[in-house]
Amino acid sequence: MKIALDILGGDYAPHEPLSGAVKALKKNTSLELVLVGDRAIIEPAIAGKYEDRVEIIHTTDSISNEDQPTVAIRKQPNSSMVLGLSALRERDDIAAFVSAGCTGALLTGAFMKIGRIEGVSRPALCPFLPNMKGGRTMLIDCGANVDCKPQNLAHFALMGTAYLNSLGVKNPRVGLVSVGTEDAKGNEQTLATFPLLKSLSEKGKINFVGNMEARDAFSGDYDILVCDGFVGNVLLKTAEGAFKLLTAKIKRICKTSARGMMGGLLLNGKMKKMKRSVSDEAVGGTIFIGVKKTVVKAHGNSKRIAIANAINVALDASQADLSQHIRDALEGTEELLSVK
Amino acid sequence: MKIALDILGGDYAPHEPLSGAVKALKKNTSLELVLVGDRAIIEPAIAGKYEDRVEIIHTTDSISNEDQPTVAIRKQPNSSMVLGLSALRERDDIAAFVSAGCTGALLTGAFMKIGRIEGVSRPALCPFLPNMKGGRTMLIDCGANVDCKPQNLAHFALMGTAYLNSLGVKNPRVGLVSVGTEDAKGNEQTLATFPLLKSLSEKGKINFVGNMEARDAFSGDYDILVCDGFVGNVLLKTAEGAFKLLTAKIKRICKTSARGMMGGLLLNGKMKKMKRSVSDEAVGGTIFIGVKKTVVKAHGNSKRIAIANAINVALDASQADLSQHIRDALEGTEELLSVK
Repeated sequence: MKIALDILGGDYAPHEPLSGAVKALKKNTSLELVLVGDRAIIEPAIAGKYEDRVEIIHTTDSISNEDQPTVAIRKQPNSSMVLGLSALRERDDIAAFVSAGCTGALLTGAFMKIGRIEGVSRPALCPFLPNMKGGRTMLIDCGANVDCKPQNLAHFALMGTAYLNSLGVKNPRVGLVSVGTEDAKGNEQTLATFPLLKSLSEKGKINFVGNMEARDAFSGDYDILVCDGFVGNVLLKTAEGAFKLLTAKIKRICKTSARGMMGGLLLNGKMKKMKRSVSDEAVGGTIFIGVKKTVVKAHGNSKRIAIANAINVALDASQADLSQHIRDALEGTEELLSVK
Repeated sequence: MKIALDILGGDYAPHEPLSGAVKALKKNTSLELVLVGDRAIIEPAIAGKYEDRVEIIHTTDSISNEDQPTVAIRKQPNSSMVLGLSALRERDDIAAFVSAGCTGALLTGAFMKIGRIEGVSRPALCPFLPNMKGGRTMLIDCGANVDCKPQNLAHFALMGTAYLNSLGVKNPRVGLVSVGTEDAKGNEQTLATFPLLKSLSEKGKINFVGNMEARDAFSGDYDILVCDGFVGNVLLKTAEGAFKLLTAKIKRICKTSARGMMGGLLLNGKMKKMKRSVSDEAVGGTIFIGVKKTVVKAHGNSKRIAIANAINVALDASQADLSQHIRDALEGTEELLSVK
């Protein structure tokens, strides 16, 4: 089982994706990678150490953030992203494709080249957030689908549950992101979603615990937060902005007095570690859940650690046979969740 | 000009609202208050000091969070909230009403008893967030309207601009909360809102700077963030949750080693101050903007400082004649923003 990696995607390509690959190969001695990128850069980096576990698909073409996704996927057949996705589709020995390249192009490409699992109305992005209990909480969708029907949200709940089940989490608690915890709180979309999730819960398909408020997103009281991609995107990015604000304020405290400076010095190492634990780096990448094979989107600004972690995300999902878990999860829900 | 205050609303009523009133009276020696609540509790607190600046509207009845808002406003004419709102409507010497009571009831009550400013499609809640530049950024709407039309969002932009103008901020920069900064990014709602805001900007009615991402909500690059009440509620509460997570993590760091403990002790005072600066307390309350007279919602968990600050929010808006600013802002936009 091999993982394909886009060496030419992301803000720090090709060096950071390549370093991330080397890092992952070093750590996991049974890992095999297919690196999609410039042979001239890749070969020196793996020479003498990892040649036997690395295959190269050579290209120097890549899709940029400025390219229109659908057009780019169609018109750039030799881009690292399209080559990676095509290899994933065609080859049984490749289990997943990881890219830090343009999100829109990757989602479009995965949709067009790999295709949805039968019955899934909308594949989704499902990153993990850190939580107060030291664990992590899935947010689904966080931006793949900005306009959703209640049935789409129900599919997110089913897929998220299947994913966590496949990772060994039993009975993951599903919360519906809303403006209050009471059953009657919400907007048109969530109010229409609520009974669907309740039905799925009664059928034993998910463990729906009700509406939740965004202030509890990090409480650890939920395993899966379900919302449309617009709301999820706002939630994820607000958290990012809030962390940034707070760490900037702490930094300022540590700079403006002798007391602060001394305190800052004492806490420095642990604070950095803490900052990392709430950053994208810790998670590495997000599965585009609902497509037939594993596609992982790493953050555009991924450096080596994030890339190595994204490879792990891909490995975990592939080893757990996520697609089969999703097929099983959807079974018997067709009538309830048919989108009229 | 008097400010009316609900002494019986909020989680810590009556003592914290009452203490907040006393605090405000002490600080602002020209402030006059109308306290709506139990005379037996209020009189001892103001005796010998503030009697000449305090009027009491006596009642012992209050609306609880469990009451259905519309029903409560209709069936509890002697509740502190209804009495306060009625006094605000009927008396010219009362400029504003402040309450930490049930949000739903207060909004419903303000809508029914005070009424919208002519031309305003939907009054909204517009709290201020702290930002990286040490200033504050308005979020409008944050929960009064969970389902919005593009025209409603345009009204929020106009009202927010009028409010900041009335507080002396010139040309406040309006951002539309979206999933990317590019003009074409967004969901159906924001994509339809974008051209309306652009038109208003071209007319000189607002200063629209484009789509914004939630990670920049605290950057200080925007003065007003426009979104529907569902998205705004998620944004506000996510920030709250993220601050809570980070401060909990820092606390843990400061508890788990001698180094950490010492660092924590050195930083303690400033950290507490910083924490307060990003809390609800610092802001105190949020205007329900778009109703004919000033109604301020203080957070349900308000203690004395928050209440005193909420009274200041009410004072500022009343002194600036916010309603007139809003009427002026709406002039000439009727055709563009008519909700079909």
